[in-house]
Amino acid sequence: MDFSSDTSAPAHPSVIEAIAAANSGNQASYGGDDVTARVRGELSRVFETDDFDVWMCGSGTASNALALSVMCPPTGAILCHEEAHIERDERGAPEFFTGGGKLQLLAGRDGQIDVQVLRDALAAIDHGFVHGTPAQVLSLTNLTECGTAYSAVQIANYCAQAHQAGLRVHLDGARLGNALVSTGDSAADMTWRAGVDVLTFGLTKTGAIGCELIVLFGAMREKFVDLQARAKRSGHMPAKMRYIAAQAEAMLTGDLWLDLAGQANDRAQQLAEVLLASSGAALTHPVDGNEVFVQVSEAVVTDLRTAGSKFYPWPGGSQRFVCSWQTSDQDIAAVKATLNTH
Amino acid sequence: MDFSSDTSAPAHPSVIEAIAAANSGNQASYGGDDVTARVRGELSRVFETDDFDVWMCGSGTASNALALSVMCPPTGAILCHEEAHIERDERGAPEFFTGGGKLQLLAGRDGQIDVQVLRDALAAIDHGFVHGTPAQVLSLTNLTECGTAYSAVQIANYCAQAHQAGLRVHLDGARLGNALVSTGDSAADMTWRAGVDVLTFGLTKTGAIGCELIVLFGAMREKFVDLQARAKRSGHMPAKMRYIAAQAEAMLTGDLWLDLAGQANDRAQQLAEVLLASSGAALTHPVDGNEVFVQVSEAVVTDLRTAGSKFYPWPGGSQRFVCSWQTSDQDIAAVKATLNTH
Amino acid sequence: MDFSSDTSAPAHPSVIEAIAAANSGNQASYGGDDVTARVRGELSRVFETDDFDVWMCGSGTASNALALSVMCPPTGAILCHEEAHIERDERGAPEFFTGGGKLQLLAGRDGQIDVQVLRDALAAIDHGFVHGTPAQVLSLTNLTECGTAYSAVQIANYCAQAHQAGLRVHLDGARLGNALVSTGDSAADMTWRAGVDVLTFGLTKTGAIGCELIVLFGAMREKFVDLQARAKRSGHMPAKMRYIAAQAEAMLTGDLWLDLAGQANDRAQQLAEVLLASSGAALTHPVDGNEVFVQVSEAVVTDLRTAGSKFYPWPGGSQRFVCSWQTSDQDIAAVKATLNTH
Amino acid sequence: MDFSSDTSAPAHPSVIEAIAAANSGNQASYGGDDVTARVRGELSRVFETDDFDVWMCGSGTASNALALSVMCPPTGAILCHEEAHIERDERGAPEFFTGGGKLQLLAGRDGQIDVQVLRDALAAIDHGFVHGTPAQVLSLTNLTECGTAYSAVQIANYCAQAHQAGLRVHLDGARLGNALVSTGDSAADMTWRAGVDVLTFGLTKTGAIGCELIVLFGAMREKFVDLQARAKRSGHMPAKMRYIAAQAEAMLTGDLWLDLAGQANDRAQQLAEVLLASSGAALTHPVDGNEVFVQVSEAVVTDLRTAGSKFYPWPGGSQRFVCSWQTSDQDIAAVKATLNTH
Repeated sequence: MDFSSDTSAPAHPSVIEAIAAANSGNQASYGGDDVTARVRGELSRVFETDDFDVWMCGSGTASNALALSVMCPPTGAILCHEEAHIERDERGAPEFFTGGGKLQLLAGRDGQIDVQVLRDALAAIDHGFVHGTPAQVLSLTNLTECGTAYSAVQIANYCAQAHQAGLRVHLDGARLGNALVSTGDSAADMTWRAGVDVLTFGLTKTGAIGCELIVLFGAMREKFVDLQARAKRSGHMPAKMRYIAAQAEAMLTGDLWLDLAGQANDRAQQLAEVLLASSGAALTHPVDGNEVFVQVSEAVVTDLRTAGSKFYPWPGGSQRFVCSWQTSDQDIAAVKATLNTH
Repeated sequence: MDFSSDTSAPAHPSVIEAIAAANSGNQASYGGDDVTARVRGELSRVFETDDFDVWMCGSGTASNALALSVMCPPTGAILCHEEAHIERDERGAPEFFTGGGKLQLLAGRDGQIDVQVLRDALAAIDHGFVHGTPAQVLSLTNLTECGTAYSAVQIANYCAQAHQAGLRVHLDGARLGNALVSTGDSAADMTWRAGVDVLTFGLTKTGAIGCELIVLFGAMREKFVDLQARAKRSGHMPAKMRYIAAQAEAMLTGDLWLDLAGQANDRAQQLAEVLLASSGAALTHPVDGNEVFVQVSEAVVTDLRTAGSKFYPWPGGSQRFVCSWQTSDQDIAAVKATLNTH
Repeated sequence: MDFSSDTSAPAHPSVIEAIAAANSGNQASYGGDDVTARVRGELSRVFETDDFDVWMCGSGTASNALALSVMCPPTGAILCHEEAHIERDERGAPEFFTGGGKLQLLAGRDGQIDVQVLRDALAAIDHGFVHGTPAQVLSLTNLTECGTAYSAVQIANYCAQAHQAGLRVHLDGARLGNALVSTGDSAADMTWRAGVDVLTFGLTKTGAIGCELIVLFGAMREKFVDLQARAKRSGHMPAKMRYIAAQAEAMLTGDLWLDLAGQANDRAQQLAEVLLASSGAALTHPVDGNEVFVQVSEAVVTDLRTAGSKFYPWPGGSQRFVCSWQTSDQDIAAVKATLNTH
Repeated sequence: MDFSSDTSAPAHPSVIEAIAAANSGNQASYGGDDVTARVRGELSRVFETDDFDVWMCGSGTASNALALSVMCPPTGAILCHEEAHIERDERGAPEFFTGGGKLQLLAGRDGQIDVQVLRDALAAIDHGFVHGTPAQVLSLTNLTECGTAYSAVQIANYCAQAHQAGLRVHLDGARLGNALVSTGDSAADMTWRAGVDVLTFGLTKTGAIGCELIVLFGAMREKFVDLQARAKRSGHMPAKMRYIAAQAEAMLTGDLWLDLAGQANDRAQQLAEVLLASSGAALTHPVDGNEVFVQVSEAVVTDLRTAGSKFYPWPGGSQRFVCSWQTSDQDIAAVKATLNTH
């Protein structure tokens, strides 16, 4: 009953098998291997296009920061939600990788940037005012930090606004699979067709060991050489790239990543129902994906902890429960049993 | 017959087994797991001390740069050999991680910093000259970039000089195992007992997938909190740390890393003998570890390439052959056969 | 009738005379000159202490950023008001100079950080949460960006809170003279006695050409060598320092700076009265110093512009008028005349 | 008899007069003033073109670093002479402003990059080798750090080579006037006509207080907006720009700067003759401009110091004497008198 994070789960067995299978014979270092080449083919299928370039690394924080560093100059700013992972949980990585760029924080309910707040922020950009720091990138997150999902239509709307104001759009897809399953949108519709310029495509939380893909779509492909150079100098060009590629291949083949994300989402729905049955419980945010943010009584918190459940208190007094591909019927049942005896 | 790099070899099977074994049940993220705790124990044995702190990540470039970033301020310089990996092969990572620190290059034969050159450089440091950039760190590499090994006594001598001038000493041990086997020195004698303040302890080239340890000894432990913060913001705090820890545990247990390094060294000796038997061949540098730098005729190069051998031409006209734990008797025999038919 | 900024005014004649007087004979470069030495004496008198170190440069933006760069590591954050000059008007200078540190924005009326908002922010600092960016500095501004003045007692209260939470305090005193005259506090009471660790002491807006002093008090003096090195590498170590020192000497001698600040404050009071006499006019913020933020009708704006007055529209719909040492009775009378004909 | 540096001299009286003259009435801040506009006209005349953009600031270090920061990405390198000011005397400013770019040092006699050394360095650039840091800029200095002058023909030759290899060329002209007078070349021939892309045009050492111009020629003008943003965030956008502009105007009008540079050059010739008359004296480098590098006996050094002469010992055992616009016949005569009594 570990609901602390989807990163505390083990990797899916297919991932381990793929790593073992890749561990045979010599392969060119630094991405010149066969597995890496095959991943590109899988991505073409998933995103229904060949008009992209991709870089893989083991870290979600680095993937976001590297992506932003080829989108935003040191003298520019990045618009994001005030609770975005890049703001709250990456220890200044975007500022470090961009060479001192700024994050400009936007408010909005349920982790989603308010449409009017964005409109005002875009309208206020003044490239002629050299003292200020004009925004050059809009960074969205899907699932959001509150576990809610933007639809592809929403994303497209944000992108249209941002593009009209001359900005590029980054999508932090650390939990992209959960968002896709939740909304029923396709990966293509949610990303490049909606106008996303650069995607951080996370597979770590979905079930890999450490596997994140930075995908440059269309015109942003011209930044690929720069991206590689920045990956190298930040230590995100693994010598033995094949082992990250093997993870990606395992997750993408047969859309395993979407199956696992779907499982985690289902468990979150079940868990939410169980938790809401306790007296006075209330969801803080809609449960669109694999995360449940809920207000429950202190007694419930204590009982669950005593019974062995792990989960984090969240700012504002709620609790966060995260389900992973490995969260089982038994885990949910155990929570239910604890609450019933309550 | 792939002698292109020790990073083109697969990982040792024990490493894969350890990863598979670690893939069970939930574990705390970001280094709070059981495997990480056990690695510390192994390190105490290897280094014969408990007076250290350790951080693990998947990248050698990052490990060097993170180590240097807690040793050298943005306004300082790092002394290193002019052919050092941190100068030639890391795309400015030290400059990036230190926030603009400088590398000051020192000459010397066979990849080893000349003792007199170092003495002169240390004597020239003028902290009162605000326009210059005073060196604050000496970075050594063992094996050097020319495949030679410093002995523990040599390292101790460099450290004594550097410390007397107020500098800290960093040791880039990407091939530390090869150096230890070559010299017969102990890990403790080669590092903290010799005066090394911070060690980059590489296991990737020795036989792991991606496993590098930054070890802070003694007084440098006060920088551990800073190191963690910098690791986080550069994307080198893996969420699922247990899988890097599992690699380290597999390599350290029973001193597997030294066995593998020894095998690679032995193969390099055999390979050197074989190559030297060709007419006009000459070593460019002594073969202390698992690398052979050799001048051979163009005809030999062509024949070997035609027969399927992979190796890199090196600046100055020589060829570099790298042996790994997986280089086999057959690989050496194949080279010999090719040269015999020549 | 130029109320656009106190930086559009010429320098006080004494400043020009001092520069001319300094222009005789050779002097040591980079701050080794006689004038620089004399400035230190004047500062001892002004601040009633010798326990400080000082660096001079020509830029307020640089002075703030240099000060912050010796107070906040790249992995830390700086608390400041959401309208602070360091956030809105310095194009990311603090992020650049600190190597990627973050600004954490705090709300509050009239440009002053709300006491409760600060308390909450300090309470939320969690040094153990490596993913977040813990605040290490509180930066206050006096006069604030809204032209209001903190009293020395207020400053002391903020400092006490910040220090208790382990933070250092920076005071951006670009308009320190205006704040001192407004509150009647002494320079010592407003700064080190209140607990300010590092002061940016601006004389440019008060009447110099370009003359800003970074003053490190007490324990922060240990950062002076670092400050000098950072000043050098950012181009803020003028070779011919004597000409900046001459400005400082002219302004400090006989407390000319306070006289000039007082004149500007007086004019702002007069101007506010005149503007408030127009129908429907209302102050947006109290007029503590030399700036008037006022809501006036579009007709008044048009008439004043037509009559030759210069001033900037401000976010939120108000207008900002800034008085300088050179704003004259005639300037105020001219505004009055324009409004009367209205 | 102060030969320590041309920055220890006072400013030319015309500069002070121009500052005083500019000190009248209000002017737009940040470069929007009338004087700044007039400087542009003077520059058109001096450089015989209108195809340039210019930014002014008070610091030579900053001017070099700002220029380089719009020419070289953080992942690139800058070729320069191993004794270049940007390497030895700017405390890592280029690394800081570029965000971690590297300097690649080239050897050559008399402070001039050896033609073959440059050719080899250019030939070795491998943009496909992501681990290395490919040079993107060649930075020349004229006068060199050894006081020698490149001719316009030489500069053109270097530029042609660099351009062919895809690099941009920066010219550090801290003593450009001295070089022009020495070679007899025109400012246009020495800069944009020779192929220089960005010029740091120094007037401080020639006789101003602090006045350096960054001139972007031709295609590099597209970087002007970026340059301004970087100037702002590094504190090199003076609010009261008119006072820097006034210095430039004074120096450029009637080619005062060339007259002053010529005077300083003449004095250096005279000084060299006087010094060479002492027994065993020898020039270390040709005296092309206003600097004399000379080997003299310890006795001569002692006698000159005792008689009040100031000059710096130089690496390698020589002494550096710098003449400025203010060095007088009497200064030279005093040295001669000292040596005669020797």
